[in-house]
Amino acid sequence: MKRTSFAKWPCSVARTMNLLGDWWTPLVLREAFYGIRRFDRFQSELGIARNTLADRLGTLVEQGLMTKEPYQSDPVRHEYLLTEKGKDFYPVLAAMSAWGDRWLDNGDGPPIVHHHRTCGHDMHAEVVCSECRQPLEAADVEHRMGPGYPAKIAALPQVQARFAAQRAE
Amino acid sequence: MKRTSFAKWPCSVARTMNLLGDWWTPLVLREAFYGIRRFDRFQSELGIARNTLADRLGTLVEQGLMTKEPYQSDPVRHEYLLTEKGKDFYPVLAAMSAWGDRWLDNGDGPPIVHHHRTCGHDMHAEVVCSECRQPLEAADVEHRMGPGYPAKIAALPQVQARFAAQRAE
Repeated sequence: MKRTSFAKWPCSVARTMNLLGDWWTPLVLREAFYGIRRFDRFQSELGIARNTLADRLGTLVEQGLMTKEPYQSDPVRHEYLLTEKGKDFYPVLAAMSAWGDRWLDNGDGPPIVHHHRTCGHDMHAEVVCSECRQPLEAADVEHRMGPGYPAKIAALPQVQARFAAQRAE
Repeated sequence: MKRTSFAKWPCSVARTMNLLGDWWTPLVLREAFYGIRRFDRFQSELGIARNTLADRLGTLVEQGLMTKEPYQSDPVRHEYLLTEKGKDFYPVLAAMSAWGDRWLDNGDGPPIVHHHRTCGHDMHAEVVCSECRQPLEAADVEHRMGPGYPAKIAALPQVQARFAAQRAE
């Protein structure tokens, strides 16, 4: 089944989702953040089919979130390491985890506690404004066309209406 | 094709992803954050098949992220409104969008500029520690078993080893 491609949409959420491809990819990244590097470890930790895992790791390398490095010769074996781009995805998983802890804990409390070594506290991720540092809420944010918004699409009446509605809110 | 169910995993990322089901769901939520409420508007904005949209909206209602409310009788018509649980998902999309703006802009700059009405600045989302307010990085966070971690799984040697490796880092 061919999936709709979101890669060309002028929306960073859609582009990110297109890159990830499916839900296995964030879980592969999660394992990498737990320190997993080798194919067999990813495989056993996730219980994922080998061909699926090979595909997802391949995509992550191709998209620059991971690199594949030899750690042994004869026979050559590789490990998968996070790049800066890959490491920078951690906050997205942390925000997702905080939401799940809040809303999907079935009343048992969070399955995982996040301990921040930097400050020594158990904590959860909060998503704040880069400028005023206040927690972000949808109602407070207006979405405007940015420099990367394609001029052709920007000219469409329905797109104009969409952004005008945002301003009028 | 039956998808692996992540709902029972002791991981809030996996649970969240299981709930979302596929990448259309966050895009449906994105439209809701843009103020879209009616089926036909979701459909035309996303270019999504009607049965797919009905399914994703149904899941969002069933999972408590949206409610379906009549806005007209004779014929009855409904609109879809975000609940608190649904509104609280915005920061996850904002964090995802910030990552995409940074890494997937193809050199054109971000397609959308986020303007924070609260403080009057263009901004991006930042993910910080709830306690010390510093930006989160994976290397600084230790993941420990929480109250909701199932005792049965916690006793497994490979799970013990996994958490011990975190502590040793």
